[in-house]
Amino acid sequence: MYEQIKEVVSSLINLNEVELNYFISKLQVKHFNRKEIILQEGQICRYAYFINRGCIRYFHNLEGEEITAQFFFENGWYTDYGSYLSGTASTQNIQAIEKTEILLLSKTDLYNLYQTIPQFEKLGRLMAERAFLGLRQRTEMLTNQTPEERYLNLIKDRPKVFERVPQHYIASYLGIKAPSLSRIRKRIFDKK
Amino acid sequence: MYEQIKEVVSSLINLNEVELNYFISKLQVKHFNRKEIILQEGQICRYAYFINRGCIRYFHNLEGEEITAQFFFENGWYTDYGSYLSGTASTQNIQAIEKTEILLLSKTDLYNLYQTIPQFEKLGRLMAERAFLGLRQRTEMLTNQTPEERYLNLIKDRPKVFERVPQHYIASYLGIKAPSLSRIRKRIFDKK
Repeated sequence: MYEQIKEVVSSLINLNEVELNYFISKLQVKHFNRKEIILQEGQICRYAYFINRGCIRYFHNLEGEEITAQFFFENGWYTDYGSYLSGTASTQNIQAIEKTEILLLSKTDLYNLYQTIPQFEKLGRLMAERAFLGLRQRTEMLTNQTPEERYLNLIKDRPKVFERVPQHYIASYLGIKAPSLSRIRKRIFDKK
Repeated sequence: MYEQIKEVVSSLINLNEVELNYFISKLQVKHFNRKEIILQEGQICRYAYFINRGCIRYFHNLEGEEITAQFFFENGWYTDYGSYLSGTASTQNIQAIEKTEILLLSKTDLYNLYQTIPQFEKLGRLMAERAFLGLRQRTEMLTNQTPEERYLNLIKDRPKVFERVPQHYIASYLGIKAPSLSRIRKRIFDKK
């Protein structure tokens, strides 16, 4: 169960076996069914989530509509950084798209790891940097790209999304309506 | 010249005097005039910038239009993380809004600091976390708020922007045209 997370963490920082097992001992395992809500807006996000198996999305409720902001798959990390860091209520909803197995690391345990095994500071830095880059990519997509460019880049960069995520979530993620996504797909398909 | 950065860094990590002075010895000072370009898209961003005095913005060129993405003032840090981390060409332009004094820390020096003084890993983590939160705030502003809400939140959270930044940069930052900003200002002023 812990082979993937051991591999991911060991690829980023150098831990000996005792340290690695100490880290593993801090993790909780949770299972979620398809469509099950993992975190609801208004709750405080107290965990970093490592996706062991499955796929999740996070979304915002905006005037009765769900705006899908991001998808995460196996070996990906997710946390609502804002809520996690400041202890304030989350504005995000996390939902399992498939049957999903998650390893949870509490903020308390992570901050203890920062103290006891300073190498974890590096892991924390790398995670925050990646989270930043992921968010920047999405922000630039929404502000600097046409809907068609967004679609083509997503196909190129993350084909997995199209294999595993329902169309209406993808449309929402791309900042367009589902019928627009169908039109774009048709247009691109017709060109080929 | 180095009092501010010493204070900012010391508020985040515990360094002794030797370590702090070693860090300071790695900084370069540069001065920029009003409207001078600090980094141009296409260049590689090789530095983290600490603003000692003045104010900068970064912007994207989108179909001949400059889209202002963020402002930074004294004691703020800026880097194009994407370019800085990956060594790829920057898609951002950084420009001084006022006469500006900047302290530059090269990526090479920062990565050496990570090795020689592991405390800097914590500084790196905190910086990346803050960068993430700043970017998330802007992303959510653009996707979840009306132009009027964006304007009111900016006034509440960062009144300095209205004192020091030209209106057309602010309009662009809020994702609206300058005449729309004038109309919003008028509407809110009329209500009072």
